[in-house]
Amino acid sequence: MLPVAEGSDPDEERRHREKMARRKAVQDAEVASKRIEKGLLIVHTGPGKGKTTAAFGLLLRAVGRGRRAGVVQFIKGAWDTGERAALRRFDDLVEWHTMGEGFTWETQDRVRDVTACERAWAVAAAMLRRDDLSLVVLDELNIALRYNYLPEDEVLRALAARPAMQHVVVTGRNARPALVDAADLVTEMGATKHHFAAGVRAQEGIEF
Amino acid sequence: MLPVAEGSDPDEERRHREKMARRKAVQDAEVASKRIEKGLLIVHTGPGKGKTTAAFGLLLRAVGRGRRAGVVQFIKGAWDTGERAALRRFDDLVEWHTMGEGFTWETQDRVRDVTACERAWAVAAAMLRRDDLSLVVLDELNIALRYNYLPEDEVLRALAARPAMQHVVVTGRNARPALVDAADLVTEMGATKHHFAAGVRAQEGIEF
Repeated sequence: MLPVAEGSDPDEERRHREKMARRKAVQDAEVASKRIEKGLLIVHTGPGKGKTTAAFGLLLRAVGRGRRAGVVQFIKGAWDTGERAALRRFDDLVEWHTMGEGFTWETQDRVRDVTACERAWAVAAAMLRRDDLSLVVLDELNIALRYNYLPEDEVLRALAARPAMQHVVVTGRNARPALVDAADLVTEMGATKHHFAAGVRAQEGIEF
Repeated sequence: MLPVAEGSDPDEERRHREKMARRKAVQDAEVASKRIEKGLLIVHTGPGKGKTTAAFGLLLRAVGRGRRAGVVQFIKGAWDTGERAALRRFDDLVEWHTMGEGFTWETQDRVRDVTACERAWAVAAAMLRRDDLSLVVLDELNIALRYNYLPEDEVLRALAARPAMQHVVVTGRNARPALVDAADLVTEMGATKHHFAAGVRAQEGIEF
């Protein structure tokens, strides 16, 4: 049995109501002040978990609204992931390209990595010209930029020239400062606590 | 046309290969050292965007693996969201309960909020006893705890007593220190840059 709510005291009730009424006024004014609608350039970076995961959460939200979306994975190879399997139920709305060859320390071959990134970028650049795509996820593009596998200026130009209402999510650690400058929304995922440090392994359904 | 990869210099090629070989050795040793498999208590907190979104990304990953999952939304009311609409395609795997009455500043009624949270908690507690659920998302539970709408000790006891392989994701700002202590994985979503500050409004397919 749960304890009785503190709210049974009428004075506290009134204080709560007044506080929340003030909060609502601030909130409503804030909402009313925002009028711009535009395609957002969103960056998920930082050392914590959740960068790619949150990008696929956004994808889910978009397809739930019946919008078309594209995904290009720059680093990850063709291994099968839970999110890939799940999004097969949305093949009518999602175009998915896994173009990487695996992590750079797996291939150990810079030329091969660069070639894979260039191929992925060609697919991504084509998506950034299509106004039927409401959302484009460029997964781990930050890694490709960080290792100079792709020319930053060309990537930034293509992002800037995309259709006005197209949303783009770029993921990966160590986002380039110029990309952060260009972005509308940057979330830094900080690893406050990570189970790998406690000896827990990567598990199906959580990490992949 | 993209510039020729820097990797055409054989010396640089060799250095890259050696560096990545060292990195791979470290990486492989790290992976080998992690042997524990367990249900994770995951907390997404912080002021940035992506807390709930990343939780639904994890849900997508889990259902992609054919696992069953449950969702309880403690604060959000019954308004329709993109993720809710999308996950209807997984009604065979996902049980979804939106139990809130809206944000606390919308209801302005503490007793009503507490009652809604208690009702939501009863559903959540039942999920935390079921070993057929691989993942349970407790969306905005942190808010309910922060306002003392639920007794923290009872919530922590139920989390600790859940099936050993069940993963739980708790979202919301201002996670309680005791919850962070109990968690296996805590990601703090930091708002490095937010488009609301630039006058951009909440848009369908991105915010909801």
